[in-house]
Amino acid sequence: MANHTLLLLSQDNAEYQALLKQAYLPGLTILAPEGEADIRAALAKADILLGEPARLRARLNEAKALKWAQSTYAGVDVLLRGDCRQDYLLTNIRGIFGPLVSEYVFGHLLALTRHLRHYKAQQRLHNWQPIPYESIHGKTMLIMGTGSIGQHIAHTAKHFGMTVLGISRSGREAAGFDNTYQLPALNNVLSRADVVVSVMPSTPQTRGLFNAARFEHFKPGTIFFNVGRGDAVDEGALIQALRHGNIGAAVLDVFASEPLPVASPLWDMPNVVITPHNSGYSFPAQIVTRFSRNYLKYTSGKTMEGLVDFNLGY
Amino acid sequence: MANHTLLLLSQDNAEYQALLKQAYLPGLTILAPEGEADIRAALAKADILLGEPARLRARLNEAKALKWAQSTYAGVDVLLRGDCRQDYLLTNIRGIFGPLVSEYVFGHLLALTRHLRHYKAQQRLHNWQPIPYESIHGKTMLIMGTGSIGQHIAHTAKHFGMTVLGISRSGREAAGFDNTYQLPALNNVLSRADVVVSVMPSTPQTRGLFNAARFEHFKPGTIFFNVGRGDAVDEGALIQALRHGNIGAAVLDVFASEPLPVASPLWDMPNVVITPHNSGYSFPAQIVTRFSRNYLKYTSGKTMEGLVDFNLGY
Repeated sequence: MANHTLLLLSQDNAEYQALLKQAYLPGLTILAPEGEADIRAALAKADILLGEPARLRARLNEAKALKWAQSTYAGVDVLLRGDCRQDYLLTNIRGIFGPLVSEYVFGHLLALTRHLRHYKAQQRLHNWQPIPYESIHGKTMLIMGTGSIGQHIAHTAKHFGMTVLGISRSGREAAGFDNTYQLPALNNVLSRADVVVSVMPSTPQTRGLFNAARFEHFKPGTIFFNVGRGDAVDEGALIQALRHGNIGAAVLDVFASEPLPVASPLWDMPNVVITPHNSGYSFPAQIVTRFSRNYLKYTSGKTMEGLVDFNLGY
Repeated sequence: MANHTLLLLSQDNAEYQALLKQAYLPGLTILAPEGEADIRAALAKADILLGEPARLRARLNEAKALKWAQSTYAGVDVLLRGDCRQDYLLTNIRGIFGPLVSEYVFGHLLALTRHLRHYKAQQRLHNWQPIPYESIHGKTMLIMGTGSIGQHIAHTAKHFGMTVLGISRSGREAAGFDNTYQLPALNNVLSRADVVVSVMPSTPQTRGLFNAARFEHFKPGTIFFNVGRGDAVDEGALIQALRHGNIGAAVLDVFASEPLPVASPLWDMPNVVITPHNSGYSFPAQIVTRFSRNYLKYTSGKTMEGLVDFNLGY
């Protein structure tokens, strides 16, 4: 068996190294150097990299032996920019964030519909006062993006009795969705949605998709989630839509610029919930399981899971 | 067809009257008097009552023609006390609260596991700081009560990848549960549960079930829900268990005395969430659908849905 060399370029190198030692990875040498000279030496011989996309990007041009890079994240847009080489196999993490993002969406959605903040305020005053509410059963959720995360959210929405609509590039049927449409149908579909969830990657088609004109098509009071990429949303237009009631509430995990600048008006809006880009999380144990499976495919020339199409952008 | 007379004794009489007028209820006269004399006259001839259990209880002895009472709630314990007549058919509402209580449980559970209160506090400070979390996937939920509400919660827990254990009187298999046990197994099962949800009715067997000795068997940090009946819990013991960490957090919708007294220490405990007994809600439109179905069964001598066994207590 040929020998392969993996260079770890993650913020969690120590944890990855410990986990990889216990995995079945025949013929693999694992490097996790700390000094700059050692990193450079390792970059010259490693055919495999594993790390967060921004860390991979910073070392891409020095990785002379690179054949395959495993991203620990789902979003790899920083590696797809025009100034980046594309002469290697890039795999992202798909299929493990669905449950986590689904927990996030329904935790926040039910916290809003069941008035958890109001009850917290009432509790402080020892105030026993029921607040009228409606079930999410029978409501309509539109999910922008019908990949594995979108499908997991869709299944959860179906479980709670929601009607689930999807928008995707192809408009093809997808598991868990009642109906799926292509982007040109978006404005029309928006008028039927009580909840809109964007899980879209950053691509030329998705950037700025939610602009002032788009928000005009939202049903007043819609709950809007962005758990995809911040650049899908024109934040100035979002703030106006929130102020004018086109959007009832926004739950935002991603932003045009992250961390969200301290001066952003979004922080102080009463109908905005801000979380620091962690609706999903790359638990190293799960990443290592995926990497190990991909390594066996890589060494036997099979198609790896999460292989990114540099043209499509995901 | 024989004629029947329904007397409405609900807080929402007007809404019920409007909805019942549109329903198919052959041979039924509907009364919703307001004055005391008219109510007494109606009680003398109505063979059917519809209302909240406490309102039914107040009029039970005057209802000379009573054959069937439809409760608008699931919990009918006030009608099962020793001083209440039991010479009529009593039906409660089962099967429609499952989705609502499930929304409540998972809204609050995910709000806790995903740190929504902490992010709200951070947002006030414009602070972008991820907080480590764990998925509920792979955790174990113990549900006390395997009836229709318990089963709905169980299905939701399974959807989120939890292991689901149940305790019921019979210990019989129930849909959505991985394993079900009888009450004597409770202490043993408690040691495996990350989340404990009580949906139990008030019966001689359930009263005071969660006492100081019981809380000793909880896994430290357990999240405890009570959405059943307040008298299942010794609140003094619960407060001690919360203070000593046997319980990580308690989400309480029901209490020994309701409204929860203003002086209760529970209000100010940081790891307690208090809601005013509305995890489920009797939306009149749903109750009328159920009543209409039951009316057709009543008039044709068939077994009605939600028929209460006065001996079992539910």
